[in-house]
Amino acid sequence: MTSNIKKWAAEFIGTFWLTFGGCGSAVLAAGFPNVGIGLLGVSFAFGLTVLTGAYALGPISGGHFNPAVSVGLAVGGRFKASELPGYIIAQVLGAIVAGAVLYVIATGKPGADIGGFATNGFGEHSPGGYSMMAALVAEVVLTAIFVIVILGATAKRAAGGFGGLAIGLCLTLIHLISIPVTNTSVNPARSTGVAVFGPSIAISQLWFFWVMPIVGAIIGAVIYKALLADDNE
Amino acid sequence: MTSNIKKWAAEFIGTFWLTFGGCGSAVLAAGFPNVGIGLLGVSFAFGLTVLTGAYALGPISGGHFNPAVSVGLAVGGRFKASELPGYIIAQVLGAIVAGAVLYVIATGKPGADIGGFATNGFGEHSPGGYSMMAALVAEVVLTAIFVIVILGATAKRAAGGFGGLAIGLCLTLIHLISIPVTNTSVNPARSTGVAVFGPSIAISQLWFFWVMPIVGAIIGAVIYKALLADDNE
Amino acid sequence: MTSNIKKWAAEFIGTFWLTFGGCGSAVLAAGFPNVGIGLLGVSFAFGLTVLTGAYALGPISGGHFNPAVSVGLAVGGRFKASELPGYIIAQVLGAIVAGAVLYVIATGKPGADIGGFATNGFGEHSPGGYSMMAALVAEVVLTAIFVIVILGATAKRAAGGFGGLAIGLCLTLIHLISIPVTNTSVNPARSTGVAVFGPSIAISQLWFFWVMPIVGAIIGAVIYKALLADDNE
Amino acid sequence: MTSNIKKWAAEFIGTFWLTFGGCGSAVLAAGFPNVGIGLLGVSFAFGLTVLTGAYALGPISGGHFNPAVSVGLAVGGRFKASELPGYIIAQVLGAIVAGAVLYVIATGKPGADIGGFATNGFGEHSPGGYSMMAALVAEVVLTAIFVIVILGATAKRAAGGFGGLAIGLCLTLIHLISIPVTNTSVNPARSTGVAVFGPSIAISQLWFFWVMPIVGAIIGAVIYKALLADDNE
Repeated sequence: MTSNIKKWAAEFIGTFWLTFGGCGSAVLAAGFPNVGIGLLGVSFAFGLTVLTGAYALGPISGGHFNPAVSVGLAVGGRFKASELPGYIIAQVLGAIVAGAVLYVIATGKPGADIGGFATNGFGEHSPGGYSMMAALVAEVVLTAIFVIVILGATAKRAAGGFGGLAIGLCLTLIHLISIPVTNTSVNPARSTGVAVFGPSIAISQLWFFWVMPIVGAIIGAVIYKALLADDNE
Repeated sequence: MTSNIKKWAAEFIGTFWLTFGGCGSAVLAAGFPNVGIGLLGVSFAFGLTVLTGAYALGPISGGHFNPAVSVGLAVGGRFKASELPGYIIAQVLGAIVAGAVLYVIATGKPGADIGGFATNGFGEHSPGGYSMMAALVAEVVLTAIFVIVILGATAKRAAGGFGGLAIGLCLTLIHLISIPVTNTSVNPARSTGVAVFGPSIAISQLWFFWVMPIVGAIIGAVIYKALLADDNE
Repeated sequence: MTSNIKKWAAEFIGTFWLTFGGCGSAVLAAGFPNVGIGLLGVSFAFGLTVLTGAYALGPISGGHFNPAVSVGLAVGGRFKASELPGYIIAQVLGAIVAGAVLYVIATGKPGADIGGFATNGFGEHSPGGYSMMAALVAEVVLTAIFVIVILGATAKRAAGGFGGLAIGLCLTLIHLISIPVTNTSVNPARSTGVAVFGPSIAISQLWFFWVMPIVGAIIGAVIYKALLADDNE
Repeated sequence: MTSNIKKWAAEFIGTFWLTFGGCGSAVLAAGFPNVGIGLLGVSFAFGLTVLTGAYALGPISGGHFNPAVSVGLAVGGRFKASELPGYIIAQVLGAIVAGAVLYVIATGKPGADIGGFATNGFGEHSPGGYSMMAALVAEVVLTAIFVIVILGATAKRAAGGFGGLAIGLCLTLIHLISIPVTNTSVNPARSTGVAVFGPSIAISQLWFFWVMPIVGAIIGAVIYKALLADDNE
């Protein structure tokens, strides 16, 4: 395989896994009667998709699985901007295929109701009824910190090998905070993958979950470079 | 001990642990009144059996504890096909002994009711009533990704020592997604170990939980070799 | 950047993250109807803020994120006392900004009620109604052990790289024990950051959550030095 | 400090932490109204006491925190039998002090009811009403596997540094399975530390939680040596 195809395959599979695993746990298991995994289980599921993907696929592609992360790493000087289009296309395709496979499973029972299909939203489509402004603050701040954690935990000075653990569990933590606000995106591909199959309001709000995570990622990368990076980094 | 007996003992004990721990948590603790561990606790239990088994026994046998994984590793070129029979026999025996010990404990109280005994199923035996087709998609896709994670996280290029963490928590994640669909197998030995002591429908559907995980494992290994493996791997 | 500004930025961001993430999960997600993350989710959130902060920012500032920890490390001989003022100011500012951002999000919905805003308390402000004496014992003992774990897990003889894992999950454990008693502080900055925006009783009890964690941290450091430290440490 | 006093201090503190943290989470937080941590939270608490203790104190004393583990390691050839009395005394004292401190906190509120005080039991004192025979099988099998995991994960061939993670999370897993059966002991010191302050039936059944874990530990060590150990181990 050429190096590029290998990287795109890794990003496709990793973003498939993130979207299928995270949203799948939400759609199939979160509200299961009496013993459902709840928002805590969904938070772990999202984080573990990244933890497992980082250790399995990270050495191939860097393990972004998220267009906002790819942009943040480019701004932070860890990723070539010229590689952004290929990565983002692979990520979005992986997420959409994940949405399709999840749709097949979720509708595969009598009386199935996919509900919001784990789509992201604000205002009337926010799980807890939070406003667009609250959603904006949450998505921007959380993606900014996510990128700071990614840049810091994979810096040369960081403890070797622990990046996948820290970054995966950071996504768990982000979900523990913000599922009630926006259903937690911080990842435009994940938002897109399920919006395609979800209620129409999810599509109409999808622009928000491209803009805010990417804005947050850029802010995080700028803060990291200005205040935290090693001089020789 | 000859090397082979040591390996078989490790696979026997590891698969005993996976089946006893995972299914034991489901049968004994998932639905405990008011404070039960739910599907989230069961998901952690299954994953932690593999995490602990991988660190303790992995250096001896590779830590498969699962016939589908052994097949996937053979297809992926990491395991000699000639060793498959010994491994699979040890795994199935370990799982059946686990089912027996669990049966002794679970029936050791007045008015005990073992219910489904943590067996796997589809259609009328699916916890959430999912069809055979939904179950097929779930088991094949999840086992395929599981094998990709295993092959990736134990490749030479991967971070040393973190394989057991990633692989164990991958099994947790798989359960977070799919317990409502099939009660989650991705492991024919685990399915067999409890089916022997469970309701008769579990035995009649057991073929499915041999075929689908193994098909998924082969697909995962083929995808890994075609798209993700290093040239010199 | 001068080395000092970099350290203060890391402590500001890390304590922001601890307070925003931990208290944010409590305010926004703990009691979400039917699928809320509960005290278990809040405990993981607090611990994961430290785990992620330790791997991302620890190499810059040591990753204290807590005035009591800074004092304990100074007493334990791992941190210069002359650096305490700068660190503590950065930590408290980070926590207050976190409280402000969280306040903006939490009030960003119709009929919002921030309740106790995750503030710490004893007596009538204890979540479970525990007395000042019970609260004193809990905060002192838990901070003492926290500092012992920090000093031990980052000693030269300790397994390299695992400090962030052990210390982060130690904070999770501390919360699993004591949220009902004081809502768990062990960290004066975290207490201050939300008290500023919370009910007035939180401000009137705030002195307690400066004194007790710092007393506990000093006790922990003294025990470590007297009984556990290497002679050449 | 002489080497012996340092080791005993580490075992005292570690077993204090195990008993205070594990039983404290059960007594104070498991059944907290609406948002209690349940058996899942208690399981994590017990495991995290060992995980944190192992990384912080393990380099000093080996991090046993459990008389059955000390016996198992002695049988397995990893620990001098002559050191057993000092270790076991330190462990039991640490656990009893933990029980006392927990008692002070738990009774520090109006109308406090310590209930079973997290003591272990079988028959009428089993949380789920399991018989003595079921309890015997559970305690023996789980302690045996615990010792196998400890011996395996700390063997020379094992991945360096990951022992504390695997062993701590093994204790979490053991609790996920067996709290309904015996409230989970696998540790005579932990059972003793709370029995002293708990209901009288706990004292009358305490012998059982000395005998069964130690029998299980010996069986685990014998299996490990016979079937799994390296020839030169």
